[in-house]
Amino acid sequence: MDKTWRVGVIGAGFMGKTHTLALHAVGAVFGLDTRPVADMIATSSVESAERAAARLGFARYTGDWRELVSDSAIDAVIVAAPLPHREMVLAALEHGKHVLCEKPLASHTAEAIEMRDAAEQTGLACMVGLNYPKNPASQLARDLIADGTLGEIVSARIVHVEDFLADPGLPVDWRMRAAEAGKAGALGDLGSHAIGMAHWLLGPIAEVMAETRVIHRERPDDNTGQRVPVENDDQADLLLRFVRGVSASLHVSRVATGHKMGLSYEIVGTKGTIIFDQERLSELQLYAHTDDARVTGFRRIPIGPSHRDYGDFCPAPGHGTGYNDMVTIQMRDFIAASTGHCPKAWPNFSDALAVHRVIDAALDSARAGHWVNVAED
Amino acid sequence: MDKTWRVGVIGAGFMGKTHTLALHAVGAVFGLDTRPVADMIATSSVESAERAAARLGFARYTGDWRELVSDSAIDAVIVAAPLPHREMVLAALEHGKHVLCEKPLASHTAEAIEMRDAAEQTGLACMVGLNYPKNPASQLARDLIADGTLGEIVSARIVHVEDFLADPGLPVDWRMRAAEAGKAGALGDLGSHAIGMAHWLLGPIAEVMAETRVIHRERPDDNTGQRVPVENDDQADLLLRFVRGVSASLHVSRVATGHKMGLSYEIVGTKGTIIFDQERLSELQLYAHTDDARVTGFRRIPIGPSHRDYGDFCPAPGHGTGYNDMVTIQMRDFIAASTGHCPKAWPNFSDALAVHRVIDAALDSARAGHWVNVAED
Amino acid sequence: MDKTWRVGVIGAGFMGKTHTLALHAVGAVFGLDTRPVADMIATSSVESAERAAARLGFARYTGDWRELVSDSAIDAVIVAAPLPHREMVLAALEHGKHVLCEKPLASHTAEAIEMRDAAEQTGLACMVGLNYPKNPASQLARDLIADGTLGEIVSARIVHVEDFLADPGLPVDWRMRAAEAGKAGALGDLGSHAIGMAHWLLGPIAEVMAETRVIHRERPDDNTGQRVPVENDDQADLLLRFVRGVSASLHVSRVATGHKMGLSYEIVGTKGTIIFDQERLSELQLYAHTDDARVTGFRRIPIGPSHRDYGDFCPAPGHGTGYNDMVTIQMRDFIAASTGHCPKAWPNFSDALAVHRVIDAALDSARAGHWVNVAED
Amino acid sequence: MDKTWRVGVIGAGFMGKTHTLALHAVGAVFGLDTRPVADMIATSSVESAERAAARLGFARYTGDWRELVSDSAIDAVIVAAPLPHREMVLAALEHGKHVLCEKPLASHTAEAIEMRDAAEQTGLACMVGLNYPKNPASQLARDLIADGTLGEIVSARIVHVEDFLADPGLPVDWRMRAAEAGKAGALGDLGSHAIGMAHWLLGPIAEVMAETRVIHRERPDDNTGQRVPVENDDQADLLLRFVRGVSASLHVSRVATGHKMGLSYEIVGTKGTIIFDQERLSELQLYAHTDDARVTGFRRIPIGPSHRDYGDFCPAPGHGTGYNDMVTIQMRDFIAASTGHCPKAWPNFSDALAVHRVIDAALDSARAGHWVNVAED
Repeated sequence: MDKTWRVGVIGAGFMGKTHTLALHAVGAVFGLDTRPVADMIATSSVESAERAAARLGFARYTGDWRELVSDSAIDAVIVAAPLPHREMVLAALEHGKHVLCEKPLASHTAEAIEMRDAAEQTGLACMVGLNYPKNPASQLARDLIADGTLGEIVSARIVHVEDFLADPGLPVDWRMRAAEAGKAGALGDLGSHAIGMAHWLLGPIAEVMAETRVIHRERPDDNTGQRVPVENDDQADLLLRFVRGVSASLHVSRVATGHKMGLSYEIVGTKGTIIFDQERLSELQLYAHTDDARVTGFRRIPIGPSHRDYGDFCPAPGHGTGYNDMVTIQMRDFIAASTGHCPKAWPNFSDALAVHRVIDAALDSARAGHWVNVAED
Repeated sequence: MDKTWRVGVIGAGFMGKTHTLALHAVGAVFGLDTRPVADMIATSSVESAERAAARLGFARYTGDWRELVSDSAIDAVIVAAPLPHREMVLAALEHGKHVLCEKPLASHTAEAIEMRDAAEQTGLACMVGLNYPKNPASQLARDLIADGTLGEIVSARIVHVEDFLADPGLPVDWRMRAAEAGKAGALGDLGSHAIGMAHWLLGPIAEVMAETRVIHRERPDDNTGQRVPVENDDQADLLLRFVRGVSASLHVSRVATGHKMGLSYEIVGTKGTIIFDQERLSELQLYAHTDDARVTGFRRIPIGPSHRDYGDFCPAPGHGTGYNDMVTIQMRDFIAASTGHCPKAWPNFSDALAVHRVIDAALDSARAGHWVNVAED
Repeated sequence: MDKTWRVGVIGAGFMGKTHTLALHAVGAVFGLDTRPVADMIATSSVESAERAAARLGFARYTGDWRELVSDSAIDAVIVAAPLPHREMVLAALEHGKHVLCEKPLASHTAEAIEMRDAAEQTGLACMVGLNYPKNPASQLARDLIADGTLGEIVSARIVHVEDFLADPGLPVDWRMRAAEAGKAGALGDLGSHAIGMAHWLLGPIAEVMAETRVIHRERPDDNTGQRVPVENDDQADLLLRFVRGVSASLHVSRVATGHKMGLSYEIVGTKGTIIFDQERLSELQLYAHTDDARVTGFRRIPIGPSHRDYGDFCPAPGHGTGYNDMVTIQMRDFIAASTGHCPKAWPNFSDALAVHRVIDAALDSARAGHWVNVAED
Repeated sequence: MDKTWRVGVIGAGFMGKTHTLALHAVGAVFGLDTRPVADMIATSSVESAERAAARLGFARYTGDWRELVSDSAIDAVIVAAPLPHREMVLAALEHGKHVLCEKPLASHTAEAIEMRDAAEQTGLACMVGLNYPKNPASQLARDLIADGTLGEIVSARIVHVEDFLADPGLPVDWRMRAAEAGKAGALGDLGSHAIGMAHWLLGPIAEVMAETRVIHRERPDDNTGQRVPVENDDQADLLLRFVRGVSASLHVSRVATGHKMGLSYEIVGTKGTIIFDQERLSELQLYAHTDDARVTGFRRIPIGPSHRDYGDFCPAPGHGTGYNDMVTIQMRDFIAASTGHCPKAWPNFSDALAVHRVIDAALDSARAGHWVNVAED
């Protein structure tokens, strides 16, 4: 245990806690030289920050995130607050902090460009919290694509469906307001995960065709109870053309009744096919066409120590990693990026910007009714 | 067993045999008054027809389908030959025969219109062999949509993937030649099933956006061994807008490594969701949001005598019907349509024409890169 | 279509209809030289037999099974009536008929011995309707055991669970009365299938340890409404020692809430393992330990034309056979046995007797509380 | 963060690391007042202990476990070394430490009694690491049994199969030597989990019937390479009679090719059935017979915040907990027991002794060939 590395976390909700658990776990899981310390937490008031610090195990707390990002003892900042993130991230960078920012990076692309540019100027490690590719099963998926097990890739279907807004009686929150979340609703929120995964597995996307829908057009305002409009999409269907010459479809929905963590994909190649479903995150299905025809079929591979990163959690196969373990792997990558061991850890702000550009193209396409090129830098 | 009903079958391949098995089974399965008789079979030569008659149990045979369609003893003709079907169907109608024609109905839409018009003029029962909706599980799916169990439908994903042409060394056959199969490849062949199912479950489709791909652009000619071009798509991705106001996606592929009978769909509503996979044809998954949250989840419903048509095959639940049983149900519907018991049995030639029009719109969209309206009559 | 072969069926209930459907199908499915004719049906009254003949497609009918078994035109008799079967079978044999008898063969072992002896004296084909091993997936299972794919077999678990008597309000019927069904309840009824399958996959059983339970000890009498005792077991748990030196367990229940056709097995060998579930009858799971560790897992094999008997129903893989198709395969075997093409078709009356002896040993063990040897001939 | 609580861990292998990760996680996950500190680790040498301390994040280390158990600063000791555990546990108790001991508690029952008695005399918290019941899905299972959702329980099947010793070339280790692991092999190792789970779900076991097998009778000695005998069972099949009047079967194997973490169970009741498989640890299947027959079936319940303990890891359903999270829940229970908040936390040494007594009865039964009563205190 050579070096400590002080981290400040902004936000103590779902993702604030998740990142904190990763901070506590990552050193022992991976036997790291650099040990992160959960140093300071910032929430919207001193009182709530004090409670969060006690609960989550931070040494210090503040009701003002500006205090956190400017604290000289802190090496890295994790932005786990709701959108917008821009001001927090830029301030942290200004003070020379490495940054891990929750997804979506920005409320709109201009912001994302600004943040990417700031990140590149500083040379600091800047990652965005697209954690699902960190799952060992999805790492295996990428390896099977990259090492040619699937042959030439010919098609892909990527889906991220949940039902957390299926109930039309749920009130409007920041996710449904354009000023905060942007013009993309499910497309921005779940779409970040799905597009990020698509990009990570299959490389950059060249063109997009999209159809978006708001299913529940009005919802109650939490304070007044009056019905107010939902300002962005509940679901979206995309066709994608990848730079590598593959056609694919992508579907996202936050009103997909019955689905809780429905990030799934199927990648078809000339020699094999893989199928993954995040609700069964510790297995990957593979069909390999070289099998003897009589005994051929999709095999369910239980993830184990033969696969990347699993063995650090458990030396016995099939025991299963969970959601928080993916975030711990992400933290390992963030530390590696910050300490210069892996300067190009995926996904940095440039990768996040690429996701924003796909979402922009999708919004343009949905309006225009035809294919739209994804903007390049 | 009151009345016999003489049937001639054109073709003794996969579907010729399948329809013949249905002819032998349907009377006893459903206790029909009208008993079909497998009277005559036509293939491309007298010799092969004789062998087919012996093997499949026909009283008579011919090497010339014209002889069959004009035979005065025959009540109904089943066209189970490869495309093109037009001449056979029109001749059969001319001689006053009821017709059950394999899918796709026609090589192109003009033919389908001609056949539909001829059918309507004669008033004869004319069905097309889109048999998958006959499966009791898919009948249940349609009922759960129609009776409101799913609430308002908000999205759908329909897929038909197989891998029978995944091997790039397989020679070109009629399916890959535009003169016979038309300009739509997997889109015409498997797409007929997928679009037919979509239409049957959710009603007519108003607009289409499509992307098509030929994955293996050349294949060997069976006779010369020379590489010749494949003239239609190996896979297609569609976005659909239904008249009822639902957005959906549809994917078909004949090169989807690992999939053997991959007709599947997911239909999402505000109150529930159903998932079906033809490779597990005797079960339907349902999520019903009224379940107590603590015990909620997708339930796997084993098809049984509580569901349409199953009980005629087996009085005990969960025992499973097979592919041929669906075709037997289709034969029951064809007999009912022919004998006036169900004059509007789905799918008639008009329904098949609607499928062709969606395929046309998809081909137009794939060329144009924007949404295309489905033509109406 | 060379030769006809006249069949009489006793019983027009569930299994009477099932066998009749097989009679109608088997010739065309397998292209048999011998074509069975559904000649005569016998039920308990002339009126019901007349209706059954019309519905199921028999030329003749009778209200007296003795008339059927003694009819000189009839070549083979199918006994599809409830227990007891003894008198029908012996009379049929006396008149020189081949016999296919529903399971369980007999109400008790002494009867089974008498029937087996009569069968062997006549030299006629005598089979018992243990149809589940005819399923192509279970044929593949047996092949993978026999050809060494699994290595040395080290353990097995066989289960047959259904819930058709889970409701305690259901009245007593013949299955629950010792005079008709014998002292074994679920053990005799579902146990016949499970033990037959075990025997067929792994060979003869040497020793048995058993525990039986009556869950609902009294049920209403159908006529009087009074509560009367259930006279045999609702469920049984067995440990088995096979002659080949394998230990196994076997569980049967007719009160297993939620299970409809729950005949399943897992066979573990030193090199591989197979898992089968009759509710998903068209797939077999195989784990083969020679797989590369990184991509190893249970593969779901969709049954197709690479597997025994499937291709006669459908030339395309994954389309699925159903319950009635298994019975058609059984009919093919019965015809083969009767016409001398396969004189040792499994399962004959001797095989059925072996099942009875295992059940006897189980009943003895359940009483005695220790292992009991299975009697040999 | 009010109070610290200093913990010493003996062993830095699989389970030593697992418990340490739980120590680091538990405070923040559950927002505990008492915060455990990973204070000291003991392994077999100072050098390896130093490395383990650095890797796993302990303040202190020792090559002598006696130093650890007698250290006055330490509040609690976790025994995560291979068997035998007796001496370590007794010494820790003598020095007034709370003890969490890995399973199996003891090499034989006399030891377990001695440890149980010592624990009761001291009044210290003493738990054994049967962690699988801590999984939220298995907690739900127990609740559904206890609250009557399943009605009267009528049968159960419990299985724990793995294949970590399927390869006959693997050398003998402590698990296969009677002097260390005891006379029960898979039965003692995996059987502890399976019997513990059975006991926890369904209460105490009254009688046992068992069959055990050594599949690979000799294995190489790790040092000499000579083949030496395996001294305990590779697999076992048990029939169980619970005190509550339920019959069940239980199967364990360490040579079950293909299974990695195959702890599974099915519990059948008069009103419902549950099925669980630890390889898919974040879901439970439930069939509830009150469902409308047309839409009835086993439902796959994704575990979420409606279920015990899940919400502390993640507020969104279906995201999945992993193996280490169960151990974190166990640590929460151990802290609660140690700090007097839950003095009867399951499983204490008395519960572990009950497991040993069932294993003893099974060994006796396997020798004797008849049912054996489980000894009571």
